[in-house]
Amino acid sequence: MTDFAATRAMFDLPKGVIYLDGNSLGPLPHAAKERVARAIADEWGQMLITGWNKAGWMDLPARVGDRVGRLIGAAPGTVVMGDTLSIKVYQALASALELRPDRRVILSDTGNFPSDLYMAEGLCRTLGSDYALKTVAPEAVEDAIDDSVAVLMITEVDYRTGRKHDMARLIAKAHAAGALVVWDLAHSAGAIPVDVAGNDTDFAVGCSYKYLNSGPGGPAFIYVAPRLADQVRPALSGWLGHESPFAFDLDYRPGAGIERMRVGTPPVLQLAALDAALDVWEGVDMNDLRSRSLELQDRFIAVVEAACPALTLATPRAHAQRGSQVSFRHSQGYAIMQALIAEGVIGDFRAPDILRFGFTPLYLSPEDVTQAAETLCDIMATGRWDRPEFHARAKVT
Amino acid sequence: MTDFAATRAMFDLPKGVIYLDGNSLGPLPHAAKERVARAIADEWGQMLITGWNKAGWMDLPARVGDRVGRLIGAAPGTVVMGDTLSIKVYQALASALELRPDRRVILSDTGNFPSDLYMAEGLCRTLGSDYALKTVAPEAVEDAIDDSVAVLMITEVDYRTGRKHDMARLIAKAHAAGALVVWDLAHSAGAIPVDVAGNDTDFAVGCSYKYLNSGPGGPAFIYVAPRLADQVRPALSGWLGHESPFAFDLDYRPGAGIERMRVGTPPVLQLAALDAALDVWEGVDMNDLRSRSLELQDRFIAVVEAACPALTLATPRAHAQRGSQVSFRHSQGYAIMQALIAEGVIGDFRAPDILRFGFTPLYLSPEDVTQAAETLCDIMATGRWDRPEFHARAKVT
Repeated sequence: MTDFAATRAMFDLPKGVIYLDGNSLGPLPHAAKERVARAIADEWGQMLITGWNKAGWMDLPARVGDRVGRLIGAAPGTVVMGDTLSIKVYQALASALELRPDRRVILSDTGNFPSDLYMAEGLCRTLGSDYALKTVAPEAVEDAIDDSVAVLMITEVDYRTGRKHDMARLIAKAHAAGALVVWDLAHSAGAIPVDVAGNDTDFAVGCSYKYLNSGPGGPAFIYVAPRLADQVRPALSGWLGHESPFAFDLDYRPGAGIERMRVGTPPVLQLAALDAALDVWEGVDMNDLRSRSLELQDRFIAVVEAACPALTLATPRAHAQRGSQVSFRHSQGYAIMQALIAEGVIGDFRAPDILRFGFTPLYLSPEDVTQAAETLCDIMATGRWDRPEFHARAKVT
Repeated sequence: MTDFAATRAMFDLPKGVIYLDGNSLGPLPHAAKERVARAIADEWGQMLITGWNKAGWMDLPARVGDRVGRLIGAAPGTVVMGDTLSIKVYQALASALELRPDRRVILSDTGNFPSDLYMAEGLCRTLGSDYALKTVAPEAVEDAIDDSVAVLMITEVDYRTGRKHDMARLIAKAHAAGALVVWDLAHSAGAIPVDVAGNDTDFAVGCSYKYLNSGPGGPAFIYVAPRLADQVRPALSGWLGHESPFAFDLDYRPGAGIERMRVGTPPVLQLAALDAALDVWEGVDMNDLRSRSLELQDRFIAVVEAACPALTLATPRAHAQRGSQVSFRHSQGYAIMQALIAEGVIGDFRAPDILRFGFTPLYLSPEDVTQAAETLCDIMATGRWDRPEFHARAKVT
């Protein structure tokens, strides 16, 4: 059994705070603080340029990628880190479209994270020639897969409601129709068991600053199925994806396999933070994590539904249809969330009416969750959310 | 007068090392170490998700962009940080091509950094329709500008030889031919006086980890002329370039001006390091820096040429044609550079035969430069570079 008391002790959690927003930005692992300080003082400061070799900076994207790969069912050498998730979405889509030259449609759903849709839109515009992004309601995706679809682009867990797609089923249907799949794991990696290889996906992408706790702006990852990795020719053909970057050839020749998905100079300080943050996962069994996450979610839902009838559950009740977050709707959700944060329970708000709570067993106990739910219900019962300061909008919510 | 003893005291330089590779990776400013430690412990650790507002993380790309802007002659609100230089090159090229829909040629030169050429190649392939990258020798660029050229993409200072283009002249010629200009400042920003606005350039891009000392993998920057910024529609249309990212609309609407060149979540830790590194520049006059840089270069060239006839100067003699580095050629350049590094003088090697030395007045004194040159000459005179260990190739050089 995974020792969740031990994982909790690995985080630097502020006193008096119950943190239910690890689905947006994970908290600080102690090891990340030390590891970045070392990367700065001992590596950058002392090794200077030689750190690229001596400290292994150049290999960090692949080495850390393998560690992330273990959490998503990817074999070593099939995941690489770099850039942001939006850029990785663009790379995956461009590669997939090129592998289906006779098709013109990217299919996605309206529950996808907007940046994925925006990147697809920008790519279609650049490609011209009738390329188009088609979006349907999440529940209509399966029926919309047909032989016009080049790529199915799906974020497994909805960032607003926490509704989870059945990826195995969608991937099988897409492949049967001759389409490729780009699977966005932003709310899956480190949140639920994932098996990209077992599900035979083509491309997967995700970010590291949510459930993987790499810190603000940590790098993204990309997985390409080994059967495809040597076929794709990257649209974003940067020098570190070149077969021989330090030959400084004038012509681009893609590197071997996943290496070609690298673009520019890797963000060493952010990668160092992520590398340390991944230490927390060494003793974690993803099935234990999943059971515990569902237990925490169920506990939260039970307390809130019993005492706060004004909040409407937005997350599906069926376990199989849930990620690792629970959302409730309320027309005054923004102010309610501000009031809750003011009392030390941190979740977040997503327009127009979603109160969003992430459940992360690595550092949340059942007692935390009960206390958070009770605080929320008390705020609702007393109406103390309805104060002017809680209605004032901050720039980022 | 700029106080270069004061700027030198702001860096954490290893004992016994003379660092002539700040054109590849700048050394550690003391302030960066402290600033990143604070960003991790006090911001990420204590503020958690609220750091996006409370610590100003969301505004860092624009705020730090303004500080970089001051060093390249860009007005506030015209530069933004993010991604890597390769990605910024792609954004600038895609935007420029769209503004010249009747033209198909990107013109560049064979002295450009290969990643710029690779990114252009990838973009042309994605665009199809006869888009092409045309490269000519550096000295042939001016004559190759004609009315077929959509975009002139030039890195001002050659990464191998240190040869500097006359950008004012090239920009004027390009504009007269109806072409737009993407000016790569990788070896210019913080190295030489730059005036992107005064020279009426259209787009400029650059990296921060060389002369700006932001640390390994620090973010890139992009400048778009204000007269164009509201016209371009980004190809890499990520959510943080959206007019209203937190509205989570399904359709992309570009943000105001330079904001639309943002893509994904900014790398806060790397930006914090850069922000602190820019403090060093507060008292620096770029004309003083330029004079001092040329003085250091001339001193180095004089000592080396007097004592090492086997080394051939690859950098132009005319000051107006130089950046802030000096390069010499030797068929055994790799081994010579390894021997020099072993004796505490750090430069670097670029295939096939270039020994490259960066001159950065912020932390290099005339005495350092004389000592470095004398060490190099002594290694040459004694032949002690010709040992097996200096011929063994590391992965990154």
